[in-house]
Amino acid sequence: MSMLWLDDRLIAADEARIDPADRGFLLADGVFETLRAERGRPIDLDEHLARMARGAGVLGLPEPPRARIAVAVAQVLAANGIAEAALRITWTRGVGPRGLAPPVEARPTLVVTASERASPPPPARATTVTLRRNEHSPLSSIKSLAYLEQVLALREAVAGGADEAILLNTAGRVACASAGNLVVRQGERLLTPPLGDGVLPGITRARLIARLGVVEASLGPADLVQAAEILVTGSLVRIRPVVTLDGRAVGLGTPGPAAERALAAL
Amino acid sequence: MSMLWLDDRLIAADEARIDPADRGFLLADGVFETLRAERGRPIDLDEHLARMARGAGVLGLPEPPRARIAVAVAQVLAANGIAEAALRITWTRGVGPRGLAPPVEARPTLVVTASERASPPPPARATTVTLRRNEHSPLSSIKSLAYLEQVLALREAVAGGADEAILLNTAGRVACASAGNLVVRQGERLLTPPLGDGVLPGITRARLIARLGVVEASLGPADLVQAAEILVTGSLVRIRPVVTLDGRAVGLGTPGPAAERALAAL
Repeated sequence: MSMLWLDDRLIAADEARIDPADRGFLLADGVFETLRAERGRPIDLDEHLARMARGAGVLGLPEPPRARIAVAVAQVLAANGIAEAALRITWTRGVGPRGLAPPVEARPTLVVTASERASPPPPARATTVTLRRNEHSPLSSIKSLAYLEQVLALREAVAGGADEAILLNTAGRVACASAGNLVVRQGERLLTPPLGDGVLPGITRARLIARLGVVEASLGPADLVQAAEILVTGSLVRIRPVVTLDGRAVGLGTPGPAAERALAAL
Repeated sequence: MSMLWLDDRLIAADEARIDPADRGFLLADGVFETLRAERGRPIDLDEHLARMARGAGVLGLPEPPRARIAVAVAQVLAANGIAEAALRITWTRGVGPRGLAPPVEARPTLVVTASERASPPPPARATTVTLRRNEHSPLSSIKSLAYLEQVLALREAVAGGADEAILLNTAGRVACASAGNLVVRQGERLLTPPLGDGVLPGITRARLIARLGVVEASLGPADLVQAAEILVTGSLVRIRPVVTLDGRAVGLGTPGPAAERALAAL
């Protein structure tokens, strides 16, 4: 029986109840994190909780209770007996009265789930989608429940025969993949779009900047066409090479040395 | 005891369970409508269901079952004994596996709720917020569960001492209020931003275009400053005059003749 953590306790997943008046359900009013567990231990939990706290701050949500979440993560992993897991932590504003105005005193909802981690996906065949990321929105820099644009971006890519989406921002600069940051290799240089271009401050991204000398630089679509390698980075996917973009080979059309170096650096 | 409709039946609100794996909760993957009931009857239900069907089409969701929803609305109103109601209809992609990719065969979740309609709000003291609406996003023309930007817009307005938000789009054109369309009077002309400027195709808006000769025209912030009247329109609020904008009186600083004419035209 699959178990999850709801608010303050473990509960069978099929008994766990989200209130239909939860603002997470009604208005996407909340934040979440996804992360890996390896050998039963969450990876970079502190970094994920710090980012979640920043996101909660942007929304004016109470700060996520880090100690309680750490306990929840450990218990969910143990209860389900999953050592190699994909974890998700969700923190919403909880139940509120009708309308947009939040309740005076929010009683947030906390959900922590663990599922078996899928094997790494094959190298990506990506396409540049028409949907543009809004670099002007405070939501572009936090991981909020308003994740529908990412769903649509992937859907558009899949409808075109690809399996990953590259999103530009409203200014036409490169932003991110459907659910991950981008790193581009040009010769020996490794580049990633700056936060101001509308990208989420990825934890894998930050690590590659610190450990591998990846440099923040605004990129245009032409930079992708000329790239020797393109990598999608994220806490679950880790490093996913993009081998074709809009039907054409990226570099040699196979995973390259930067993909290997990035994976080794994590 | 408050009752709501969940999927295919009436249920006590405090027993109704949204699955924590519902994509409406996890990813804002769904659409909704809010509308009035008067004397126990929903107003413009067909128009709302048509808009919901268009939104579902944009997301690739199964079409909302109109007959079932009509029954649900009637039963929710009757069961709660509310004649003057605010109704909400929510239609999500339902439970799915982990990740962004939707399930092959979606089993959508339907929720219909009714609550006592609040008395009309006082005339609005609005402020132009920094958050910009993304007119490039397909989400700007549908009423999706990714409603968090609207929450943030209202929050920003309230933090500044106002009670309504005016959003510009990324090009700096006037878009909408936190949860309603805008109509602006200049002399005898009534103007409303065109759909291409990133506004929801409001049902009240459409009616005012048809019955009152409101004309679609792109508006800049200066048009608001010079407006004789500004109205927020919506199915719940109907017509709400904006009497101050960014701390300055709009026109005479009191509800004007266009507000009255608009209300009479509905």
